[in-house]
Amino acid sequence: MKYCSQCGKPVVIKIPELDNRERYVCEHCETIHYQNPRIVVGCLPVWETKVLLCKRAIEPRKDYWTLPAGFMENGETSLQGALRETWEEAKAKVEEESLYRLFDLPQINQVYMFYRARLSPKDFAPGEESLDVALFEEAEIPWQEIAFPVVAITLQDYFEDRRKGEFHTRISDFTYPYKKKEVEE
Amino acid sequence: MKYCSQCGKPVVIKIPELDNRERYVCEHCETIHYQNPRIVVGCLPVWETKVLLCKRAIEPRKDYWTLPAGFMENGETSLQGALRETWEEAKAKVEEESLYRLFDLPQINQVYMFYRARLSPKDFAPGEESLDVALFEEAEIPWQEIAFPVVAITLQDYFEDRRKGEFHTRISDFTYPYKKKEVEE
Repeated sequence: MKYCSQCGKPVVIKIPELDNRERYVCEHCETIHYQNPRIVVGCLPVWETKVLLCKRAIEPRKDYWTLPAGFMENGETSLQGALRETWEEAKAKVEEESLYRLFDLPQINQVYMFYRARLSPKDFAPGEESLDVALFEEAEIPWQEIAFPVVAITLQDYFEDRRKGEFHTRISDFTYPYKKKEVEE
Repeated sequence: MKYCSQCGKPVVIKIPELDNRERYVCEHCETIHYQNPRIVVGCLPVWETKVLLCKRAIEPRKDYWTLPAGFMENGETSLQGALRETWEEAKAKVEEESLYRLFDLPQINQVYMFYRARLSPKDFAPGEESLDVALFEEAEIPWQEIAFPVVAITLQDYFEDRRKGEFHTRISDFTYPYKKKEVEE
């Protein structure tokens, strides 16, 4: 951010009065420009014993497999966003949705929210951002070709919970082990 | 948003190529300015049979009681944000935190995340945004003076779950019944 989105004048970085962290501030019109984490919403669509994955047609991680997910939009609920992304990326509809797996990704200012859901009907096709969409048994999951760690963890948790016969909504942090700040420590 | 935060030129509202909704777009430097929901994180601090509430010192809902909560910041996890807000607003520390109650508020582009936690030690005091901080038994909750519906629902759910002896993480939508768009329908 270089310019104030309200008045077009250059912004400065400073700690506003009554605040305790640096913000982009416009000294001309006094607007404080807060920046906050974004939410990624998605689905884990299940058909009988199989899960649905999408092969990414775009960067990052083109050609790798992922769950249908994307940035939550203003004006929608997290579930509406998850269903929208499932339609856009996999041309699939689901039902019996249940909030399943959340992740904090503080290094990239994101929170992930995945809903577990039943694919219904058994129809799917690649959307514009997907090269392929397919159903996988647990033994068929291409673990070396999963696009993002949070997707791999969600799948692992799902198969583990399914064996136990119990699904819990839960959250955990994910921090990349190869982040510079951790290497330095 | 009136001006591009990257180059300072006026923005227009249009649907970018390969997109399906209106965005603020800079036709000079071609930056698309996405706007996304923000996350509010907070705690439900419990001491024995009592819950901790803060009396708001600021608008909106000045003089009403709330749970310590506020906007999640970049670079922190949702739990870190909830603990930070609990410290800032109630000068309180908690432990045994567990993600408890989430709300989608699509009308105001927010997602709430409340952690249930044990107050420890039993110390608290009003922070800068609070006039008072106090512990309440269920029978003492000032239901008519609760600042926000999501706080009232979280408290109701907590006491209900406590009677059942079972706490589940769950999400629901909250849409204001007095919203203009619903009145018109």
